[in-house]
Amino acid sequence: MLVLPAARERVRASDGDPGRTTRVLVGNDFSEDVRTDRGWTGWWVQRIAWFAEEGDTLVLPTHPEEAFLAYVTALTGVRRETLSIVVPPTREGSEGTLSPARLADPEFVASLAAAIGDREVSHLSALWPDAAVARLARTLGVRSAMPGYGFVDQAGGVLVNSKAVFRTIAGGAGVPMPEGAVCTSPEVAEEAILELLDGGPVVVKHDYMSGGRGNEILTTGEQFRPIGARRVIRVAGREDVRAYLRERWDWLTSGGRGRPVAERYVRDSSAYFSEFLVTDEGVEFTGDGELLSAPYAVGQIMPSQGLEPEVLGRIVEGGRRLGEALRALGYRGVLGPDTIVTPEREVLFTEYNGRVTGSTHIHGRIGRFAVGDGFGKDRVILERVWPEGWSTPSFSAALDTLRQAGLAYDPATRTGVVLTNAFDNNNGVMYCVVAADLSSAWSCDRTLKTLFAVSEQSVGGSDRI
Amino acid sequence: MLVLPAARERVRASDGDPGRTTRVLVGNDFSEDVRTDRGWTGWWVQRIAWFAEEGDTLVLPTHPEEAFLAYVTALTGVRRETLSIVVPPTREGSEGTLSPARLADPEFVASLAAAIGDREVSHLSALWPDAAVARLARTLGVRSAMPGYGFVDQAGGVLVNSKAVFRTIAGGAGVPMPEGAVCTSPEVAEEAILELLDGGPVVVKHDYMSGGRGNEILTTGEQFRPIGARRVIRVAGREDVRAYLRERWDWLTSGGRGRPVAERYVRDSSAYFSEFLVTDEGVEFTGDGELLSAPYAVGQIMPSQGLEPEVLGRIVEGGRRLGEALRALGYRGVLGPDTIVTPEREVLFTEYNGRVTGSTHIHGRIGRFAVGDGFGKDRVILERVWPEGWSTPSFSAALDTLRQAGLAYDPATRTGVVLTNAFDNNNGVMYCVVAADLSSAWSCDRTLKTLFAVSEQSVGGSDRI
Repeated sequence: MLVLPAARERVRASDGDPGRTTRVLVGNDFSEDVRTDRGWTGWWVQRIAWFAEEGDTLVLPTHPEEAFLAYVTALTGVRRETLSIVVPPTREGSEGTLSPARLADPEFVASLAAAIGDREVSHLSALWPDAAVARLARTLGVRSAMPGYGFVDQAGGVLVNSKAVFRTIAGGAGVPMPEGAVCTSPEVAEEAILELLDGGPVVVKHDYMSGGRGNEILTTGEQFRPIGARRVIRVAGREDVRAYLRERWDWLTSGGRGRPVAERYVRDSSAYFSEFLVTDEGVEFTGDGELLSAPYAVGQIMPSQGLEPEVLGRIVEGGRRLGEALRALGYRGVLGPDTIVTPEREVLFTEYNGRVTGSTHIHGRIGRFAVGDGFGKDRVILERVWPEGWSTPSFSAALDTLRQAGLAYDPATRTGVVLTNAFDNNNGVMYCVVAADLSSAWSCDRTLKTLFAVSEQSVGGSDRI
Repeated sequence: MLVLPAARERVRASDGDPGRTTRVLVGNDFSEDVRTDRGWTGWWVQRIAWFAEEGDTLVLPTHPEEAFLAYVTALTGVRRETLSIVVPPTREGSEGTLSPARLADPEFVASLAAAIGDREVSHLSALWPDAAVARLARTLGVRSAMPGYGFVDQAGGVLVNSKAVFRTIAGGAGVPMPEGAVCTSPEVAEEAILELLDGGPVVVKHDYMSGGRGNEILTTGEQFRPIGARRVIRVAGREDVRAYLRERWDWLTSGGRGRPVAERYVRDSSAYFSEFLVTDEGVEFTGDGELLSAPYAVGQIMPSQGLEPEVLGRIVEGGRRLGEALRALGYRGVLGPDTIVTPEREVLFTEYNGRVTGSTHIHGRIGRFAVGDGFGKDRVILERVWPEGWSTPSFSAALDTLRQAGLAYDPATRTGVVLTNAFDNNNGVMYCVVAADLSSAWSCDRTLKTLFAVSEQSVGGSDRI
């Protein structure tokens, strides 16, 4: 796993002289084992820079901009010059991703070995627990430096990122879920959907997609604005459901790579995540937050605001049980279970993410180290996906605009805007607002709109990523 | 789980007055979720009769022959008249199986409720942990009577019977396996197979098939008689491997339902199973044996003969670790891990079976109760798949032949032949020989050949089932 809050001192202490050891952090994305729609993520994985400690070796699909690296390391207090960056030769079709072929490239392995030099590899892990990373650890002769090596080597990453397996494990652990089923075949799906439709709308979820983009809602009656789903589809009965499944089965299963789930869609719920670090020692709670969707992920609030302690307690307790189950299987790393809280204050678990999520660097690094001890006490973070209709030409330009407006994060006041990732190669940079309270954060966000908006259209947002 | 050796007294004691409680035992087969080639298994699941205790309610796809029931209950000491048998109305395409549709049939549910009457259901389980069985428990309002209900309800049966998931969990538990990989895509399979081929023959395994029928061996050179596999295929290099995968991928994945595995084929190994009962209380070792293949499963020896205690110890220890991992996930029931022992006395785990296997009734019921305390001490069991080239017209005819020859099992001498299942609707009845030692058992088996063989052809045998 990557270094997380409570572990920073441990890592710094246990690594001893940073000149004699190095950690290898692999900035990969979803494995090609489960998704092949992620060629654009070359910038998204650059967030691994937030996890870097002195002397680390980062493996990335594309070279990070120096301006981004300088910015991040200034905030985390790491000397940029102690970091090594290794980028494998590109391959047709995987320019933006660390595909298995790129990670196995002998030229890359030689470059990585040279960057490591005569230092001992004290740790090797990745954003996504891909078997291709375990293979790299084996090639380098450092399997024991990779937590959960044996599990990941045998495709464990697929299990800990599957919505279908999530339902099986949550069912076994007795963790509450929306009523529903794992759809092992179109016939099973048809029966499950019809049974659920008697009680209201049903959400059908792709096994591996994220941010709501893999979800579709079926309803027999009312039309409504879907939250956390692509669209609402009206079905009149068995024939419609069968026709829907016939048309969408290949998409829902990624051509046979996964199993979709069908479950009760609970309207007017709010969505929260909790996050845990699963280690040999145990399951450590590391953070929580609220997930905002309109209809796809548009941002996050960390930590969660306004939740009754008892409700948060159930979120953490259920998440911990999922973490214990995966720990017993040999998984090591970040686990991010997602939940919804219904209007009746039921806590229902909806999926888990066995990877470094899009929240981990925000609460675990920016919150904990850039903001510091006040994070979660006198400071809250509002994280935002770059809104549609906003534009900036580069990372440096975005930073300059923030500085000129006096909105850039200031360590002295512990407030302001932090750019959370590299330029998205299109027109934006993801960011978060650090503020004393949520309304101040939203107020700052409205000011940002005046700086970056080029049109009135500002809903939407991209994949939770 | 079904009643197993050490549990019999517990079950009899805890159920109290058998007139006031009943257990529902479902004689199903592989879920349609993973295999749809099992329409012939109506007779095979009749072995559930061995597990019956007084007052039990058995659900079966076809009515058992009374002669078979009378035979089994005489040996287990259960009064036949206390048992209820319920058979759901047949459906086109699932005459021989308890398909989800048959188990959900309202007419069947009403018959089952009538058979239960006003008795409390103290236990409900099945040979195969199918989500359709959990649904039945829900419909009857007896979920708490079904061990592992939540796990099975969310398709847990698929996880505990998948060779791909087995490798992930064994990798996470650090249980030794033949070198290999989970093939998450044809591309991953191609790389894994080519890497393994450098070191010798490679076995490619279908995720869910059994008895060796889902295994194919790839080799670059030598031809040899495959054990536990369909065939040996010669491949010269990458193009041949790619062509093989292109041709076989759909079959290897059951049209996208599973993930095949590829692993080193270790020649001249012997195969052994161990079996465990996973309960709320823990993981209990219940039996072991040797698996005979030529090339498919043809029989079993229970308990294992001639294994060094240290080797058996490693078989049991690794199996127990797999059981502990599945127990943490919420699985409850029988777990049968398979192993090979190499000529160098390495113990390597090759798969697990999270179901009542084709061994459970032999060691757990026939061995433990029909044979009794001497089983594994002064008695060994040689179990045999009905050999090709032998023939008998019915269960009763087979039994008569055995009795006339003086070979039928005799409780007084604790030796002889036990018919282990119903007539296979073709020309045979599976059986086992109880004897003082293995050579006596084989000697008896040769005598049986003189009674039943109608031709010289007697190799082969059917699926491990």
